[in-house]
Amino acid sequence: MALLTDLYQVTMAYGYWRAGRHRVPAAAELFFRRCPFRGAFALGAGLAEGLRFLRAFRFSAADIAYLRSVLPSTTEEDFFEYLATVDASEVTISSVPEGSVVFSRVPLLQVKGPLLVVQLLETTLLCLVSYASLVATNAARFRLLAGPATKLMEMGLRRAQGPDGGLSASKYSYIGGFDCTSNVLAGKLYGIPVQGTVAHSFIMSFTSLAEVEPRVLTPLAGGEPVDLPSLAESWLPQVCELLQVSPDKVNRGELAAFVSYAISFPRNFQGLLDTYCVMRSGLPNFCAVALALNQLGYRAIGVRVDSGDLAKQSKEIRRVFRACGSRFQVPWFETISIAVSNDISEESLEDFIRELVKVNGFPCLKLTEDEEKMTIPGTKTVYRLYDADGHPFMDLMALEEEPAPSAGQELTVHVLGRSGEASKVTPATVETLHRTYFRDGQVCEELPSLPEVRSYAQAALGQLSPAHRRLHEPEPYPVAITEKLHLLFGELRQASL
Amino acid sequence: MALLTDLYQVTMAYGYWRAGRHRVPAAAELFFRRCPFRGAFALGAGLAEGLRFLRAFRFSAADIAYLRSVLPSTTEEDFFEYLATVDASEVTISSVPEGSVVFSRVPLLQVKGPLLVVQLLETTLLCLVSYASLVATNAARFRLLAGPATKLMEMGLRRAQGPDGGLSASKYSYIGGFDCTSNVLAGKLYGIPVQGTVAHSFIMSFTSLAEVEPRVLTPLAGGEPVDLPSLAESWLPQVCELLQVSPDKVNRGELAAFVSYAISFPRNFQGLLDTYCVMRSGLPNFCAVALALNQLGYRAIGVRVDSGDLAKQSKEIRRVFRACGSRFQVPWFETISIAVSNDISEESLEDFIRELVKVNGFPCLKLTEDEEKMTIPGTKTVYRLYDADGHPFMDLMALEEEPAPSAGQELTVHVLGRSGEASKVTPATVETLHRTYFRDGQVCEELPSLPEVRSYAQAALGQLSPAHRRLHEPEPYPVAITEKLHLLFGELRQASL
Repeated sequence: MALLTDLYQVTMAYGYWRAGRHRVPAAAELFFRRCPFRGAFALGAGLAEGLRFLRAFRFSAADIAYLRSVLPSTTEEDFFEYLATVDASEVTISSVPEGSVVFSRVPLLQVKGPLLVVQLLETTLLCLVSYASLVATNAARFRLLAGPATKLMEMGLRRAQGPDGGLSASKYSYIGGFDCTSNVLAGKLYGIPVQGTVAHSFIMSFTSLAEVEPRVLTPLAGGEPVDLPSLAESWLPQVCELLQVSPDKVNRGELAAFVSYAISFPRNFQGLLDTYCVMRSGLPNFCAVALALNQLGYRAIGVRVDSGDLAKQSKEIRRVFRACGSRFQVPWFETISIAVSNDISEESLEDFIRELVKVNGFPCLKLTEDEEKMTIPGTKTVYRLYDADGHPFMDLMALEEEPAPSAGQELTVHVLGRSGEASKVTPATVETLHRTYFRDGQVCEELPSLPEVRSYAQAALGQLSPAHRRLHEPEPYPVAITEKLHLLFGELRQASL
Repeated sequence: MALLTDLYQVTMAYGYWRAGRHRVPAAAELFFRRCPFRGAFALGAGLAEGLRFLRAFRFSAADIAYLRSVLPSTTEEDFFEYLATVDASEVTISSVPEGSVVFSRVPLLQVKGPLLVVQLLETTLLCLVSYASLVATNAARFRLLAGPATKLMEMGLRRAQGPDGGLSASKYSYIGGFDCTSNVLAGKLYGIPVQGTVAHSFIMSFTSLAEVEPRVLTPLAGGEPVDLPSLAESWLPQVCELLQVSPDKVNRGELAAFVSYAISFPRNFQGLLDTYCVMRSGLPNFCAVALALNQLGYRAIGVRVDSGDLAKQSKEIRRVFRACGSRFQVPWFETISIAVSNDISEESLEDFIRELVKVNGFPCLKLTEDEEKMTIPGTKTVYRLYDADGHPFMDLMALEEEPAPSAGQELTVHVLGRSGEASKVTPATVETLHRTYFRDGQVCEELPSLPEVRSYAQAALGQLSPAHRRLHEPEPYPVAITEKLHLLFGELRQASL
C-alpha cells in the first residue's frame, strides 16, 4: 500500500533526501476549505483506516524495484536503500475522534514526523479521510432531515467507484447516522445491519398464480397448512372494490410473485409495488396478500416504491392502508411501513420523512493540506469553546506551547475572515479537540467500535446549535486564532513579502 | 467477494429456491439507458474484473454462516447447504470486447445461467462494469477533445472513493485514452506510465538560496562541477529585464526550490509555477534555472500551472518561452511543454489543447439490467452495421436463432424510438458485437493487455462517424431490432395487458 501515492510525492522525497532535508521535523494538517453540501459542519471520518495504513507503511523490495524503474536513471542508488528503511515509527498522528463534528479551516488530522515521511503519507491519508468524511457528512445531513425515527438505508453499491468505494460508502453512511445497508459484505465485515427484499426482476419472473410452488403456508399458531394463492386471490375482488380499480388490470404475475415471497418469508413479507402500476396493480396485490397472511396470523412488514413521484405515492399508499385497516378491521394495516428509493435527494427527502431511503452519488469534498504550515514545527492546538447551553460556539487555534484557555475566563481571539480585529469571548466549557492516536509506530489510543462512533457522531450533532446545524443557509461557524498565533501569522506574512 | 452484493439478491435467491425455480435457465443483459456526458457513445469496460470475480465466485463457510445470521429464522437450512455448492460453472458470459464503443440500449454484457446464480451476480457485475465504463468514456471524451498529440494525465487519487476507486480511475482512464497517471500503485499493478514532479509544499519548504544543498552539478558532457545556485542567480536579472518584472518581487525560496530540484533531476527539470505569482516569480525563476541548466548542456522538460486562468496563463507562458528562446539564442525553449492541472473540465480543455491534464470527479452512469428479458431464454445477438466508408451506422438486435445479416443485403429493421415503423438498410459490412468470454467456469477467450485494450478503444472511436462522435449535441446513434424481434415484443406487450 505504500505505493498508493502520487509520483510527485516520491520525486519530492528524492529532492528532500538529495538536499539532506529528509529528516527535518515537519508537520502537516488535513482540513477542508469549505464545508460540503453548503452546510456549516462536516463529520470527520477515516481515521481508523488511516491508522491501519500507517502501521503497515513500508516499501517492499518489489516496491523499491518498481520505483527504481520509474524514477530518472540519474537517481542515486542510496536513495532507494534509504527508502527501504522508511516506516512510520517516527510519525505522530493527532486527530479529532472519528465521527466528530468538524468545521472548515480547522485541522481534523495532524501528522508530525520527518519531512520525507510526512510527504509520502499525504496523498494516501487524504484519499482515506476525504471520501470517508464526505460520505459521513452526507449521511448526517440525511439523518438530520429525516429525524431520529425514520429508517435510512444505503443501497449505493452498484453505482459506487468499484467494490471498495461501495464498502466505504456503507461504512461511513452508517457512521453518519444511516441504519442499514443493502451491501452484504459490508454487513459481514463491519457488522452493519443489512436489509433487502426483492427487485423488479423477481416480480417479473412470474406470470400467473399457477407458477407458485410450494403453495401452502402453515398458520403462525400452527394447524392445517392453507393454500395461500387461493386465499390471496379471494381477497382481491374486495380490495379492488375498496380501491376502485378493475380486477382485470391487476397483474397476476405480480400477485404470484408476492404470494411466493410471502410463503418464503411469511414473517417478513414486503411488497415492491412499482413493477407495473402502483395504484392499479402493486397496491391491490399487496393488500390481498397481506390480508391473506393476516388470516393466518402473520403481519406484513412494508412496501417499497422505486420510481415515479415518491412523495405523492407515499401519501396515497398511506391513505389506502388506512382505508383497508378500517374496512377489514385490521388496525395494524395503518402502520405498515412505506419505503421509497431511487435517487433520493435532500430536497425530495424533505417531502416525506417517514420512509426508507437509499442514497447514491456524492459530490466532492475537497480536503487539502495546509501547505503553508508544512515546515512550521510548532503546530497548533485546537480548542472547542462551548456556551452555557452546551452548544459549541467557536473553535480556537492556538500555538501548542500556549496555555489552554480556561472555562469562565475571558479570551482575546481573532476570528478568521473578519479582517483581523480582536474580539473577546468567555467560554463556559473548553474542550481540547485532538487526541494523539499514533506514536512511535503504534496506535496509542483505543479506537471505538463502529456503533460507538455512530453514537458519538449523533451526540456531537445534537450539541450543535440549530443555527449551525441547519442544512440550508446555516450561520457560518466561527473559527478563531489566539493573539499569539495572530501575531505569528502577521510576521510570516511580512517575511514573505 | 461473493457477498459483495445487495441483500435482496440473496432473499430473492431464497424465494427462487423455495419455489423450485432456482435452476430455471435465465439470461440478464447489462446496458445503459442513456449515454453519459450527453454524448452518443460510451466505452464498455470492466470485463476483465468481472471475469476474475466470476472465476472466484463461491460462498465460503464463513459467508454462509453470516447469511444464516441475517436471513429470517424461518429460512430453511437446506437453502444454505445449497448455497455452499453454488459457483459460476454453469454461467456463460458474452460481451463486447473491453474498450469497445457501445451505445445506449444495446447490451454490453450478457449473463446466462441458472436463475439463482444470474441473480446473485447482478449487483457485483454492475458495480464492476458501470464505474469502469463511465471512467473510460470520460477519458475518451477528453482524448477526442485534446487530439492525439496532447498528453493527458490522471491525478484523481486523493479525491477518489478510497484506494480502489482511485486505482480503477487510473486503469480505466488509461483505457479511455489517457497517457499516464500520478498513482504509483496503479503504475506498478497495471503497468500504466506514471509521472509527477513536485507539489507546492516542496517549493514552500525553501526560503533562500543558502539552503540549497548540494550546490554543484556536473555538466552533461562532464568536466568541472558548477555551483548551480550562483549560475541561476546570475541569469535572473537578464530574465527579469526581458519579462519586465522587478527582481525584488521574485521569490528566492522558489528559486532555491527550483535549483535544488534541478540538481536532483538535471535531465528532468520541471517547474511548478504558481506557488507565489506565475508571471512575476515562478516564470522568471524557471527561466533562470533552465538557462543555467542549458549552459551545462541540460534541457528543462516543462512547467506546470495548478491555479488561476489556465488558458490565459498558458498563452502568456508560451509567449515568454518564445521571447527567451530568441533573446538568449536557446531555440528549444520554444518547445518546453506547458502542463495545466486543477479541475480541468471538457469546457476548459477546449480552450487549450496542448496541455497536460488532470481529471477529477465523474458523474453517474446508470447501468441497468434489462429485467424484462430476465427469463426469456432466447437472448439477443447484436450486430453492428457499417457503411461503405467504414463508419458504424446502426446496431441491430436479433434473436439468437435468426440467421446473421449479410454484407450487401437489404434488411428490414425497426429503429427503437421511431414508433415501430419498418425501414430498410443495406450494410457494407456486418460485425457480430459480442464474444463469449466465460463458459463452464472458465475464461474461454484470451484477454488483451491494457495497452491493447487502449489501442482497440482508440481505433473504435476513430471509426465512429463525426456526427456520432462529437461531444456536444451529437446525432443519436440508431439502435434497431429485426422484424422477428419486433413481432415478439409486440406479442409480449399484448400478453402483459
